[in-house]
Amino acid sequence: MVFPLPAPMRLALDAAIAAAKESEVPVGAVITRGEQVIAVAANATRTTNDPTAHAEIVAIRAACAKLGTDRLVGCTLWVTLEPCAMCAGAITHARIERLYYAASDPKGGGVEHGARVFSHSTCHHRPEVTAGLGEREAADLLRDFFLERRDR
Amino acid sequence: MVFPLPAPMRLALDAAIAAAKESEVPVGAVITRGEQVIAVAANATRTTNDPTAHAEIVAIRAACAKLGTDRLVGCTLWVTLEPCAMCAGAITHARIERLYYAASDPKGGGVEHGARVFSHSTCHHRPEVTAGLGEREAADLLRDFFLERRDR
Repeated sequence: MVFPLPAPMRLALDAAIAAAKESEVPVGAVITRGEQVIAVAANATRTTNDPTAHAEIVAIRAACAKLGTDRLVGCTLWVTLEPCAMCAGAITHARIERLYYAASDPKGGGVEHGARVFSHSTCHHRPEVTAGLGEREAADLLRDFFLERRDR
Repeated sequence: MVFPLPAPMRLALDAAIAAAKESEVPVGAVITRGEQVIAVAANATRTTNDPTAHAEIVAIRAACAKLGTDRLVGCTLWVTLEPCAMCAGAITHARIERLYYAASDPKGGGVEHGARVFSHSTCHHRPEVTAGLGEREAADLLRDFFLERRDR
């Protein structure tokens, strides 16, 4: 029996697919609170000339604007790739409660790789983290994106 | 003989002083390229409901918007406090060439403390880092800010 992906991760993957069509590295993110979808975003660093516009940052900023707060207490972040150090730091600052990510990122990740932002004693807020949900599709999206560009 | 602070760090400290008057944690940042000031910013997390609006992130976004690029090649970031993991990650993504910060931050810093973002083999861009320039004034600003609030 194969369980379907939770709807928010499906939404995040669809946002990643849409980003690839804009020549953005295909990473998508969704923020939920309970059953409610608060924000859907994708990586937008190239189209916006903003190196901080990773999917997670765009989603956090949108969710905070929507809720009128700088703390996303009780919220869950669903993202198709392991957050980098910048995004992991933002997750801490935003007090995100749970983090689901799809593919691991040995080169750029900052959760289970590299800076391991949540693993230091000085980290003042850690989400509950679950990795691997939808990882094959998320990883295939990224691999295909970079393969296609390498061939050009 | 006492050398005066370089003008960009003076600007960053003045931005921090202005932030405190808006009840924002007093941290300021300036981005320069050669002799030119590209962006001046301060911490704005509370006034904008944006947990990512640390001085460094606001300055990087402003500089990228001004220059029409997502890579601040050849730019220097001057900030009054050791960048956190989020901001250190953003400095890497933005390809900032040199980083000067004033006060160290044993609790929240991510350069010489905690996640030490630039010290991992997977970090794909490291700025040249110089700490301590104007540290006493920067640290006093923060201490006074938090002391005043604790007394309320």
